[in-house]
Amino acid sequence: MPTIVVDVMPKAELLDPQGKATSGALDRLGHGRFHDVRIGKRFELNVDGEVTAEVLAEVRTVANEILSNAVIEDVVAISVDGEAVAVEAQ
Amino acid sequence: MPTIVVDVMPKAELLDPQGKATSGALDRLGHGRFHDVRIGKRFELNVDGEVTAEVLAEVRTVANEILSNAVIEDVVAISVDGEAVAVEAQ
Repeated sequence: MPTIVVDVMPKAELLDPQGKATSGALDRLGHGRFHDVRIGKRFELNVDGEVTAEVLAEVRTVANEILSNAVIEDVVAISVDGEAVAVEAQ
Repeated sequence: MPTIVVDVMPKAELLDPQGKATSGALDRLGHGRFHDVRIGKRFELNVDGEVTAEVLAEVRTVANEILSNAVIEDVVAISVDGEAVAVEAQ
């Protein structure tokens, strides 16, 4: 059964308070070489049957309209069983 | 500046109520072919300079001890500028 992964991140131009807090914590805990932490979401979905072009189109729709909030988030990656596919329809 | 991505998912044997709710919503909205949705986190970190073996070891420590809660979550993937690296030290 194919597994589809959709990665969603807060838009680059928006503050990410959760990421900022994590950056601060890493700094205090002696891991100051890591910075500008941003925290997004990773969705794993299973799908029955083969992943056809039609299924991919539906994945893009679901990713953009249901799994992410386009006002504040971007869909940054979609992959099927580890293979990256285009986030936007070609 | 290299970007490191750390993916964290709820452990497979644990319930993921957020994912379950999303599966239900997809079903009601006519996307029933997608199921068993699980929702994890995607961390993006920037690091200064080159990613040496020492930096990678530190990334693994940070991923396992700070970015994830080992009781309920697994670090499922780490990548540097899009290249997957081993989650566990070899």
